[in-house]
Amino acid sequence: MTHICGDAADFAAAALEGFCLAHADLVRPVRGGVVRSAPGRDGKVAVVVGGGSGHYPAFAGYVGEGFADAAVAGDVFASPSTQAIINVAREASRGGGVILGFGNYAGDVLNFGIAAERLRDEGIDARILAITDDVASAPEAERQRRRGIAGDLPVFKITSAAAEAGLSLDEVERIGRLANERTRTFGVAFGGCTIPGEPETLFSVPRGRMALGLGVHGEPGIDETPIPPADELAALMAERVLREAPEGAGTRVAVLLNGLGSTKYEELFVLWAQLGARFHQAGITLVAPLVGEYITSLEMAGCSLTVTWLDDELEPLWRAAVRAPVLARGAVAGEAPARIARPVAAAMEVTQAASAAGRRGGACVAAALDRLAGALAEAEAELGRIDAQAGDGDHGQGMARGSAAAAQEAARVSREGGGARSVLGAAADAWADRAGGTSGALWGEGLRAFSTALDDERPATIETLAEGAARAMQRIAELGGAKVGDKTLMDALAPFVDVLHAQLAHKKPGVEAWQAAATAAQEAAEATRALLPRLGRARTHGERSKGHPDAGALSLALATRVIGEALATESLPA
Amino acid sequence: MTHICGDAADFAAAALEGFCLAHADLVRPVRGGVVRSAPGRDGKVAVVVGGGSGHYPAFAGYVGEGFADAAVAGDVFASPSTQAIINVAREASRGGGVILGFGNYAGDVLNFGIAAERLRDEGIDARILAITDDVASAPEAERQRRRGIAGDLPVFKITSAAAEAGLSLDEVERIGRLANERTRTFGVAFGGCTIPGEPETLFSVPRGRMALGLGVHGEPGIDETPIPPADELAALMAERVLREAPEGAGTRVAVLLNGLGSTKYEELFVLWAQLGARFHQAGITLVAPLVGEYITSLEMAGCSLTVTWLDDELEPLWRAAVRAPVLARGAVAGEAPARIARPVAAAMEVTQAASAAGRRGGACVAAALDRLAGALAEAEAELGRIDAQAGDGDHGQGMARGSAAAAQEAARVSREGGGARSVLGAAADAWADRAGGTSGALWGEGLRAFSTALDDERPATIETLAEGAARAMQRIAELGGAKVGDKTLMDALAPFVDVLHAQLAHKKPGVEAWQAAATAAQEAAEATRALLPRLGRARTHGERSKGHPDAGALSLALATRVIGEALATESLPA
Repeated sequence: MTHICGDAADFAAAALEGFCLAHADLVRPVRGGVVRSAPGRDGKVAVVVGGGSGHYPAFAGYVGEGFADAAVAGDVFASPSTQAIINVAREASRGGGVILGFGNYAGDVLNFGIAAERLRDEGIDARILAITDDVASAPEAERQRRRGIAGDLPVFKITSAAAEAGLSLDEVERIGRLANERTRTFGVAFGGCTIPGEPETLFSVPRGRMALGLGVHGEPGIDETPIPPADELAALMAERVLREAPEGAGTRVAVLLNGLGSTKYEELFVLWAQLGARFHQAGITLVAPLVGEYITSLEMAGCSLTVTWLDDELEPLWRAAVRAPVLARGAVAGEAPARIARPVAAAMEVTQAASAAGRRGGACVAAALDRLAGALAEAEAELGRIDAQAGDGDHGQGMARGSAAAAQEAARVSREGGGARSVLGAAADAWADRAGGTSGALWGEGLRAFSTALDDERPATIETLAEGAARAMQRIAELGGAKVGDKTLMDALAPFVDVLHAQLAHKKPGVEAWQAAATAAQEAAEATRALLPRLGRARTHGERSKGHPDAGALSLALATRVIGEALATESLPA
Repeated sequence: MTHICGDAADFAAAALEGFCLAHADLVRPVRGGVVRSAPGRDGKVAVVVGGGSGHYPAFAGYVGEGFADAAVAGDVFASPSTQAIINVAREASRGGGVILGFGNYAGDVLNFGIAAERLRDEGIDARILAITDDVASAPEAERQRRRGIAGDLPVFKITSAAAEAGLSLDEVERIGRLANERTRTFGVAFGGCTIPGEPETLFSVPRGRMALGLGVHGEPGIDETPIPPADELAALMAERVLREAPEGAGTRVAVLLNGLGSTKYEELFVLWAQLGARFHQAGITLVAPLVGEYITSLEMAGCSLTVTWLDDELEPLWRAAVRAPVLARGAVAGEAPARIARPVAAAMEVTQAASAAGRRGGACVAAALDRLAGALAEAEAELGRIDAQAGDGDHGQGMARGSAAAAQEAARVSREGGGARSVLGAAADAWADRAGGTSGALWGEGLRAFSTALDDERPATIETLAEGAARAMQRIAELGGAKVGDKTLMDALAPFVDVLHAQLAHKKPGVEAWQAAATAAQEAAEATRALLPRLGRARTHGERSKGHPDAGALSLALATRVIGEALATESLPA
């Protein structure tokens, strides 16, 4: 949808005016488009690019030092008029002739072609450069029929750098054609886009499906399939492009992974991580790669992969310094290694336990955490469903992840001879680290505080466990600021601690005391859960950061029950 | 929707890996986030920013020279863990202390707060800087409760520039807090976003409505209204922010118009053009303004306006050189004037007609074009409806625009004494220029060719009109490559020309001959129109560039009829 729109008939012009305001340091408006605010040298070849609007940063965003001298802007998805092209080219002309660069669409071919004739008639030598990078738009044998899409960027960048370097019109034209010859793009679309002022999308792609080679104006693609996982999508796109490596193609390429408008940057990066591996396998080096939105199609969902095979002539031009709204690069552009090493987690320090009793205590903690991880893994889906009614449904996942990491770390530290305090302390940090978020931090800090009540030299007793639970509650209250009644884990933790201490005051046996406390926690958690239907989603979503209302109390109650079972079997010392 | 996604649980980590691959020249991955690939000077204060993932370029995109030293990345919309923050801060520390910058959300406050404590415990002086720019999230009296949104960018940029300049930790912290004190953001949302792996949006906004102050994770806003036109939206947003100008606020501000994910760049620029005027009225100067996507919320639709009131201390820091994935700026940042002059169309040259007869001829052409413009304005909606079945529905608008411009230009040239040839020639260029696109170019070139059969010294005769029509057809065929049967205007133009010449060969009177030809054109156009239901939309959309199948023929037939009526009344010379 288009949400911000004045007079729809004036949309493209209004957008261009706003663009000029935002980038007044780089461009100035002229009738029909924009030119550099600081013109290039006298006698320089002028590179004028353009096409329909709705593709920002194409084409006005390409104007600046080291890139285009000017851009012509047509109406949304419509070629600029011959008169607009002529006017912008006159404004941009520095006496060295003009290159008119555009995508290979009939309307643009027509208007830029007529403009070139007229410019030559008035003594400005003008050459046309129609980009034909879209491999899906025609067979390789008919490349001249292919459409121009994201290949516009590398071809115009390289052509412009040649002009900036002072080459002649003939040379700049030759390099532009060479760059286009060596550029291939393959795109996929997941969803359509809407013309400003229109109520419905111009075209659409069925949900969960992907249109291969669909044009940036909805021109029909070559196939439609279900959307594959990122690795398969990367393989598909890389294969479609790389299979067309031009004659004499080397191993160094300029690469552009382009988002079409509403595809998230994170999605592009997820795909890029997979593409990096593919290119590495193919023995290809990525020179100054670009991942982002460089030529869009209004708010279309989808992306395209562009490769320009470089040679000794093209590479320095691709890497040359540039300062335009879309791209600002220093004199030395970077190269991405085709892969990176995944960072490795540093293992925790272990306090060696001195005694066999201490080691036994550590083993007990590890065993209890192992049970807890198992129980939370089983409960993950259910906790997720409950949390989804109030929050974003990730509570179950966070608890499962955190407890699994804690159990693993506890086992490691216990194997290395850690006592109860060290094992639980290390497990606490592992929990917080893997679970992340608010509840991860609260559980981590809570368990760490709990561990300070334990001892590395001897197993836990019910008294030390009760003290640990009290310290955990105190730390969580101090950190989260949550009080009983806020529908957080505190609603279950507080009655647990109270009942546990009351039971011990009455000299109840340890396991029995703990289980009574666990029952109290469970009842309190169920009470908060009963409030759930009355919690409006938006409201509770706003409060998510307080730690998963209700689901947090339920998972805490579950934990106390499971640990109680562990105590019953692990034979707690008197 | 999230379309590119491997294991959803691993989405944030996979995105970060891809980001590091794409920007290996600027950043390198460490456990929990990224740090600059080229570390800052020894003893420099390190600025470490972070928060949940799903907000790219926040926060990893802020890492680079002149900006942050490192970024910590949590899971999607979840705070990073304490351990991740500590690890990244250790990696980033250069011995001058660390600033931990984050948005004011409970989970981040908790994790960054604990991390700061732990870092200080191990001898790294760490200060926290919680951003609170969202004016909609709490009343001004409770600013410390406000959330941090797009204000992150200017505050972190200014703070980082202070650190880059070698200021002490106390000074950098003071400047960071000052920048936050002077920063306000107001956002609106048009649509929700989806957590990777989830089938439905996390939250949504009713179609055509706008949520004021909705949080970037769907936190409830303060109101919901219909989406207003761009100028009213600009007024609303500017007022909400400017009403909170802090004490001692000057007239120079850093401004950021931020897109939340799927709002088109062109929409942002349309809004910016209106905002520029508002700021100008308020006597405010925009220093190095930014319009684009600087902190997103997955593919959320919406935007936010951020203002940071600068002073002599903050302005140079805002303008300071920076080289990060999100922002690359030279040593001298530009300033946008608060408004620009709209470019003015240059008037055409006029060939003065020598004779009264010639002027009468020019007036006849102008009168005919005036009728044509009137008829096409009436037919605009109908032609649009027809075109929408095959193309994108803009044919009626293009014809109405083009003919109106042609009639206006014809009247001007006629008033100045232009003859038939000059009047039609000038009108032709005006038509093509205002109509734009393919059909605009074809009509412009066709009418221009038509004009070459006319004479500035005497009115047109039926013979010169017939010759003109033939030349127009020839030029259009040569340009568009359209043949009879392609369902373009050629389907109507060819029979028109054939019948007109045949009628004249049989010595039929001029007006009668023309009207017979117009009837033939109309019949041919109706025939192509009858094919319409059989044309699949996608197919014809791909062919749009051939010039609006069917609707083009209908509008040409209409034109011949209207001009026939003109000839009948304007008393054509024998």
